[in-house]
Amino acid sequence: MTVTHSENQQSPSPSRAPEAPVGLWLNGARGSVATTAITGLLALRAGMASSTGCVTDTGMLRDAPLASWTDLVIGGHDIVDTPLEKKAESLVDSGVIPAPVLAAVRGSLPEVERNLRTGYDVRSDTGPQAEVIDRLVGDIEEFRRRHGLARVVVINVSSTEPPAEYRPEHDDLDALTRSLADPQARALPPSSVVAYAAFQAGCGFVDFTPSTGARMPALELLAQRQQVPFAGSDGKTGETLLRTALAPMFTSRALHVLSWAGVNLLGGGDGATLEDPANAKSKLSSKAGVLPALLGEDVTAPLHIDNVPDLGDHKTAWDHVSFEGFLGVRMSMQLTWSGVDSTLAAPLVLDLARLTAAAHRAGHVGPIEQLGFFFKDPIGTDEHALADQARVLADWANGLDRQTGS
Amino acid sequence: MTVTHSENQQSPSPSRAPEAPVGLWLNGARGSVATTAITGLLALRAGMASSTGCVTDTGMLRDAPLASWTDLVIGGHDIVDTPLEKKAESLVDSGVIPAPVLAAVRGSLPEVERNLRTGYDVRSDTGPQAEVIDRLVGDIEEFRRRHGLARVVVINVSSTEPPAEYRPEHDDLDALTRSLADPQARALPPSSVVAYAAFQAGCGFVDFTPSTGARMPALELLAQRQQVPFAGSDGKTGETLLRTALAPMFTSRALHVLSWAGVNLLGGGDGATLEDPANAKSKLSSKAGVLPALLGEDVTAPLHIDNVPDLGDHKTAWDHVSFEGFLGVRMSMQLTWSGVDSTLAAPLVLDLARLTAAAHRAGHVGPIEQLGFFFKDPIGTDEHALADQARVLADWANGLDRQTGS
Amino acid sequence: MTVTHSENQQSPSPSRAPEAPVGLWLNGARGSVATTAITGLLALRAGMASSTGCVTDTGMLRDAPLASWTDLVIGGHDIVDTPLEKKAESLVDSGVIPAPVLAAVRGSLPEVERNLRTGYDVRSDTGPQAEVIDRLVGDIEEFRRRHGLARVVVINVSSTEPPAEYRPEHDDLDALTRSLADPQARALPPSSVVAYAAFQAGCGFVDFTPSTGARMPALELLAQRQQVPFAGSDGKTGETLLRTALAPMFTSRALHVLSWAGVNLLGGGDGATLEDPANAKSKLSSKAGVLPALLGEDVTAPLHIDNVPDLGDHKTAWDHVSFEGFLGVRMSMQLTWSGVDSTLAAPLVLDLARLTAAAHRAGHVGPIEQLGFFFKDPIGTDEHALADQARVLADWANGLDRQTGS
Amino acid sequence: MTVTHSENQQSPSPSRAPEAPVGLWLNGARGSVATTAITGLLALRAGMASSTGCVTDTGMLRDAPLASWTDLVIGGHDIVDTPLEKKAESLVDSGVIPAPVLAAVRGSLPEVERNLRTGYDVRSDTGPQAEVIDRLVGDIEEFRRRHGLARVVVINVSSTEPPAEYRPEHDDLDALTRSLADPQARALPPSSVVAYAAFQAGCGFVDFTPSTGARMPALELLAQRQQVPFAGSDGKTGETLLRTALAPMFTSRALHVLSWAGVNLLGGGDGATLEDPANAKSKLSSKAGVLPALLGEDVTAPLHIDNVPDLGDHKTAWDHVSFEGFLGVRMSMQLTWSGVDSTLAAPLVLDLARLTAAAHRAGHVGPIEQLGFFFKDPIGTDEHALADQARVLADWANGLDRQTGS
Repeated sequence: MTVTHSENQQSPSPSRAPEAPVGLWLNGARGSVATTAITGLLALRAGMASSTGCVTDTGMLRDAPLASWTDLVIGGHDIVDTPLEKKAESLVDSGVIPAPVLAAVRGSLPEVERNLRTGYDVRSDTGPQAEVIDRLVGDIEEFRRRHGLARVVVINVSSTEPPAEYRPEHDDLDALTRSLADPQARALPPSSVVAYAAFQAGCGFVDFTPSTGARMPALELLAQRQQVPFAGSDGKTGETLLRTALAPMFTSRALHVLSWAGVNLLGGGDGATLEDPANAKSKLSSKAGVLPALLGEDVTAPLHIDNVPDLGDHKTAWDHVSFEGFLGVRMSMQLTWSGVDSTLAAPLVLDLARLTAAAHRAGHVGPIEQLGFFFKDPIGTDEHALADQARVLADWANGLDRQTGS
Repeated sequence: MTVTHSENQQSPSPSRAPEAPVGLWLNGARGSVATTAITGLLALRAGMASSTGCVTDTGMLRDAPLASWTDLVIGGHDIVDTPLEKKAESLVDSGVIPAPVLAAVRGSLPEVERNLRTGYDVRSDTGPQAEVIDRLVGDIEEFRRRHGLARVVVINVSSTEPPAEYRPEHDDLDALTRSLADPQARALPPSSVVAYAAFQAGCGFVDFTPSTGARMPALELLAQRQQVPFAGSDGKTGETLLRTALAPMFTSRALHVLSWAGVNLLGGGDGATLEDPANAKSKLSSKAGVLPALLGEDVTAPLHIDNVPDLGDHKTAWDHVSFEGFLGVRMSMQLTWSGVDSTLAAPLVLDLARLTAAAHRAGHVGPIEQLGFFFKDPIGTDEHALADQARVLADWANGLDRQTGS
Repeated sequence: MTVTHSENQQSPSPSRAPEAPVGLWLNGARGSVATTAITGLLALRAGMASSTGCVTDTGMLRDAPLASWTDLVIGGHDIVDTPLEKKAESLVDSGVIPAPVLAAVRGSLPEVERNLRTGYDVRSDTGPQAEVIDRLVGDIEEFRRRHGLARVVVINVSSTEPPAEYRPEHDDLDALTRSLADPQARALPPSSVVAYAAFQAGCGFVDFTPSTGARMPALELLAQRQQVPFAGSDGKTGETLLRTALAPMFTSRALHVLSWAGVNLLGGGDGATLEDPANAKSKLSSKAGVLPALLGEDVTAPLHIDNVPDLGDHKTAWDHVSFEGFLGVRMSMQLTWSGVDSTLAAPLVLDLARLTAAAHRAGHVGPIEQLGFFFKDPIGTDEHALADQARVLADWANGLDRQTGS
Repeated sequence: MTVTHSENQQSPSPSRAPEAPVGLWLNGARGSVATTAITGLLALRAGMASSTGCVTDTGMLRDAPLASWTDLVIGGHDIVDTPLEKKAESLVDSGVIPAPVLAAVRGSLPEVERNLRTGYDVRSDTGPQAEVIDRLVGDIEEFRRRHGLARVVVINVSSTEPPAEYRPEHDDLDALTRSLADPQARALPPSSVVAYAAFQAGCGFVDFTPSTGARMPALELLAQRQQVPFAGSDGKTGETLLRTALAPMFTSRALHVLSWAGVNLLGGGDGATLEDPANAKSKLSSKAGVLPALLGEDVTAPLHIDNVPDLGDHKTAWDHVSFEGFLGVRMSMQLTWSGVDSTLAAPLVLDLARLTAAAHRAGHVGPIEQLGFFFKDPIGTDEHALADQARVLADWANGLDRQTGS
C-alpha cells in the first residue's frame, strides 16, 4: 500500500457525496496549532495553498466520504483573547505561516473570529463545573444552529495539563454528574470538562494533547449514551512519528534494540509549558508506551524535553538507537528531526475533523481506534506500527458508508 | 503485524515437518559475508549464538515450513584460496566475529572447507564458458550427492561486477547456449555464468549482489525450463533498508519530500571494490530505483559511496532529507547509520537459503517476488515499502505448503 | 585571547582617528553575497541591525585603525543587470535578509545602484583584454573621484571560475602586458583581469573566491609596482571554518586522525555553479590543502559538493572524522553544519574592506598573510589553525599605525 | 603553533637530562582509567604501543624536562580488590584494551599489583580521619622509599563524589587538623582526605575528577606549607573538550550563540555512578562553567547525562548549537562525539604525572594553572579556550628549568 506524493495530488473523487457543512470546534482556538489550522483552511479554500500534510487529501483515503474543505466551518473556545490576526502575524514571524498566505486570507479571519468564545479558565470560573459545561454546550449549540451544521467535532488543542489525580467519580457517571454541581468539588481537569461538554452537545471529541480528556470510564459511558465517537490522544508529529516508522524495521529484521535515547529541544509556548515538570509528565508518559509496545520489551530509553526559547516552533529532536545484530555485534543509528510543530499538527487537526465527522455520520460510537495512525497514545488499541496503522485507517475510512447516519 | 523481539525468541514450531538436509552453495564462499554466515551457522548449531538478525527465526515466519539450522549444509565456490579459518580470524580482528564464537566453532570449519571448490575466474578460465559451467555444475552436483541433499540453493555473495553490456544472446536462450561454446565469445558476466550453472544443476539461485546474475530473458527462460525459483537483487542491509522504512512515513503523512541526499563511507573489500566507478555503477543503480518508487516522483538525490579504509566493515551512512509540509514550510531530517555490513548480510543469506529451498520444494518456479523484503532492487515487483514487503513475505512463507514438492 | 560576545558589543574606540571615506568596489555586485553586504551595510548605518558576524566590530580588533561603517561607500561591477532591489527581495524570500531590514533600507538602495557598472563578460567583451582593463580602471577611478575616496578596495565575490590554464605570460609582467593588447590572446581568466584592473587603479584587491585572481607572479609584481596590498583566497565560512577550529584539537591532544570525510549540500546560484565539475575543481582544490597542513599528513578525505536546489542558500555540511587514541582504539566524531552562506560571507566582506583599506593606508604592499583568518587557502602563509590565525590577525591589525599612509 | 601528528612522532630530545625515577600514585588504582593507564604504560615501555593520545610525547612539548616512560613507577590505593589482571580482561572485552596489548604486558602486571594498597573507605574506616591520613601517608612513603623515587605524584581517578557540604574548618588549616582527630567529625570528603595525605607525604596532587579534592583554603595552605604543587579538576576528554575548541570559533567570528544543548549517553561504572543525581551534580557543575566563560554570557544550555548500560565505556555525546549571524539570521550546528572515555583519559593521566613531577622538581608550589589544558574546571585560571590553553602549557612546560629542584 505505497501511496506516493504524485498520487496524493488527487482530483476530488467523483463518488464523494454532497453533504451539509460540518463544524470544527477548537478548544484552544487562539493557540499556534489552531491558528495555523484556521489560516491554512482559509488558504485551502481560497486555492492559495496545496493540502500538503493533509492525509485526508491523499490517494490513500480517496474513497472516504469526507466533507470538502469548503464545507468545514471553524469556531472554538480559548481563555486568552489575542486576536487571531495578531497570533497569525506572530506565526509569520516565526516561519510557520508564509507572509503571502496570511496576506491572502487576512480578510477572512474576522468571520472565524466571530465564532470564538471564552473558554473554561480554572482561575476565574469558580462556580460549579456543571455551570461551566452548560455555558460551553450553549456556545457549541449556538454555533451549530447559526451555521446550519450537520454535526460538530470538538478538538482539544490547548496546552498540555498535568496528569489528573484519580477520583472515584471518574469511574461513575452518575456520581460525576452530581459532583459537578458542587462548586468546591472540581472533579474534572479542564480537558475533561471540555470532553463532557462536547458529548453533552452531541459532538464527536478528539484530544490532540496528552491531557486526560475523555479518558475515564464515566466519560466513555457518556459518549455511549450520547451516541458520539471520540479519539485521541496526543498528536504524533515528530520524534514519536519517526519511532513508529523505525522500530518495526528493527523487529521485522530481527535486530535487537538495546537502548533508544532521545532529547527534544523546543521553544515557543509548548516549550514553556513543558518546562514545568508536572506538564511534561503527561507528555513523557504519552510517549513512553510506544517503544515497549513496538519492541516487545522495555529498553533503556532516557527521554528529555528541553525548553530552548530561541528555537521557537522549530523543534529539534535527536534519537540514538543502539542495537545488536548477528553474533551479538553492536551497531547504532542516530536521527535528527528538525520539524515545525504547528506545521505538522495543523493539517492533522483538519484531517481529524473530517474523519471524526464521517465516523459520527456513519454511526460510529465510542473510541475510534482506527485513528491510532494520528496519535502517540492511541485510545482503544495497542497498535503503534505506523504502516499498520495506515492500513487500518485506510481500510476503515474508505469503507465508511456514506448512506448511513445524518 | 507488529512482531517484537521477545516474540522472536520463539521455540521451534511443533508443526514444523522433518525434512531432508538442504544445501547452501555460496559463490564467493571465502569472502566476508560468506565466512560470517558459515561461522554463524556453525555457532547456531552449537548453541553458541542466538539467531539475532535471522528473520526466519522470528514469530513473523513461525508457520513457514523451513529447514532447521542443523539441516543446512554449506559449500561453495571462490576464486581466492584464503583458508576459511584465516578469513574468520581477520573478521575477529575487525569486530565482525566475536573471538569466543570463532574459538567455539574453529574445529568445525574444516568440514565446510572440504566443500569449497575453485570458482570461475575470468582471468585464468580462458576456455569456452560452457566448459566452465559444466565444471561448476559438476561441483554442485557432487556436493548434493555426497551430502544426500534434498535440494541446493546457490547464493551469489561475490564482489560486485560492473553492469554487463547488452548482447542479443541475452534475450535468446538457444543463441546464448550456442555462444557459450565459443571460447572467444564470453557472452555472460561471471555472475550470470553462476546463475546459468545453478539453474543447469536444478538449483534455486539468489543474487545478494547488484551484479547481473539471472536478470536476462534467456536465463529466466532457463529457470522456467528447469522448474527452479530465483530471487534478488542486492541485499538491503543499511541505508536503503532505512529508506524503505522511512519514505513511506513521508508519503502516508502527505509530506512532500524535496530532496534525499546520501553518502556511504566504508572500507574493507567492499570499499575497495566500489572505489572502482565501474563497479560502483551497479550498486548506485541498484539503490537509485528505491526513492522514485516510494515517493512517486524523482527527487534530487545525490548519492556517494566512498572508500574509507580505516572503517573496515563498519559502514557509516548519512542521509539528509528535506521536505515540505503544510503551507509550504520546509523541514528536514538527518540519519546516521553505523552498521557492520557482513553482520547485517550474513543472517539474511541464511534466511534466503531456507526460504528459497522452501519455495523450491513447494514448486515455486521463476522469480520469487515475495522475497522483495530482502533486496534493494527486488526482482518481479515494484513494491519497496518495508512494512508491506514484510506482510507479503509473511503471508506467502507461512502459507507455503509443506506437503508439496520434494 | 578569549573574546566573548558581550565584549564584542564594544563602543567605538575613542582613539579611532577620523579618516576620509573608503570605497568598497565589489566584482559581482549584484550577487547574493554582495547584495547581502550592501543591504547589511545600509542597515548598520541606519542603526537597523547589529554587526553580528563582523569581526572588525569585536573587542579582538578594538585598537585597529578602521574606517567606520558610515565612511564606507560601495560600488561595483557585474555582468548581469538584475536591480539590487529585486535581488534583495529574492534574498528576503530565501531567508537571508529579514523583511524589516529590506523595508528599512530600500530607499537607500538607489544610491548604491548608481555606483554599479557593467563588468567584464567573456562572452560579449571580445576585444583585447587591455581595453577591458582600461574600462574597468576608468569605472573605479570615476567612483573614487566622485565620492572623494581616500582609497578603494576591490573585492571579488563573483562566481567561481574553473582553474586557469598556465601560460608563460603569467610569470612575466611585461610579456603579459604585451599579450593583453592582442584581441585573440585572452591571457587572463576574468578574475585576474579584475585583479589587474584593481592594481592598475591603485587599489587593494581581495579574492573572496577560489578563482585565480592575483595569484600569478606577473600580478604580484604589478601589485609591488603599484604599491598596493592584496589578500585571499576563498572566504572560509562553513565546513572549512569548522575544520580549522577542530583539527588543531586532535593534534594538540595527540589523537591520530585516520580519515575526515565530508559532503556539502547547497542550492542557490552557488549550488548551480559548483555542479559544473570544472568550477567545483577550484573549490575542492581550495579546500583540499587545509587538512594535510593541519594534520601534518595526508588522510583519506573524500569530499563532495552537491547541488540540492531546494536548500537554496541554506548550506548543510556533514563531516565524519575517524581517529585513533591510546593503544590504537578507534573513535569518531560527526558534525552537521547548517549555515546560510551569504549571511556568513557578507560581514566578512565588509571586514576585509576595512582591514585591507587600513593595510593600504599603513603602507602594506603585496600579500597580506595576516588575513589568513578569513580564507580557506590563505595567500602567503601555511597557517590554517583558526585560533592562531585569530592571534596573528589581532596582533597585526591592532598594531597598524594610524599615522602612516593616506 | 600548529603541531601535527607526524611531528608528534618525535625522537627523544637529546637535551633531556637523566633523572631519578618518578612515582605515580593512583587513587582508584583498580578502576577503568587507572587500569588502562597502567596497562598502557607497561605497553609503552615494552615498545608494544605508540604513545598516541599522550600530549607529553608530542612536538608541542619537545623541550619539557620530563621523566621518560621507563622512569615512571606506578602504585596506588583502591577500596575494591579486583585484581588488575581481571579488570584489564574486562577492558579487553569492552574494547578499551586490545587483546594483544594485554597479552604482551600480562606478565608485568604483578609488579604493579604489589604496589597497590587498601584505600579510604568511608563505610569501613570509622576511626578519626587523621588515622586514615597517617595510614595513606605511610603507604605512599613506603612506595617512595622502596623504589628510590625522586618524587611521587598522587592522582585521583576514583569515582565522582557528590559536592561536599561547606564546613568552617575548610577555611582554616589548624581547625581542620584538630577536627580530623575527632572520630565523629569526618570533616573532609574522601577526595580531600586523599589530597591531605598527598600533601602531608610531600607529593604533588592532581584531581582528574570533579570531586572536591584540594579545592579548599585549608588544603591550599597545606600545599604551600609542604611546598608542593597541585592541579585539577575533572579531565576534559569529550564533549567539553570539543566545546572549548569550538566556542572560541563562534566568538572570534562574532557569531552570537543563542543556545548550546547537550546530552551524554554512557554506561560502565561511570554511567552507573552518574545516574545518582548527587554525583551527577558535581559533574554537571564542573561542565557548566565552560560556556559562560567562553561566550561571555549565559546561554540556554540544558545538559543531560544518561546511564545507558549497553554503551559501556563508549560514550556518545550530542551537542546542538543555535546561533545568530549577520542581520539576525539563525543557523545551527550539531556534533556527535563517540569516544571511549578511559582511552581518552588514561594517556592524560600519564601526561599529568610527568608534568606535575617536572613542576614539583622545578619548585612550583600551589595550583598549576598552566595545566588548565587538561581540565573542565581548571584550578587557578578562567582560561577555557583550548588553543590558548595549549599555548600556555607549551610555553610553561618547555621553559621549566631542568636544573632547579630535586
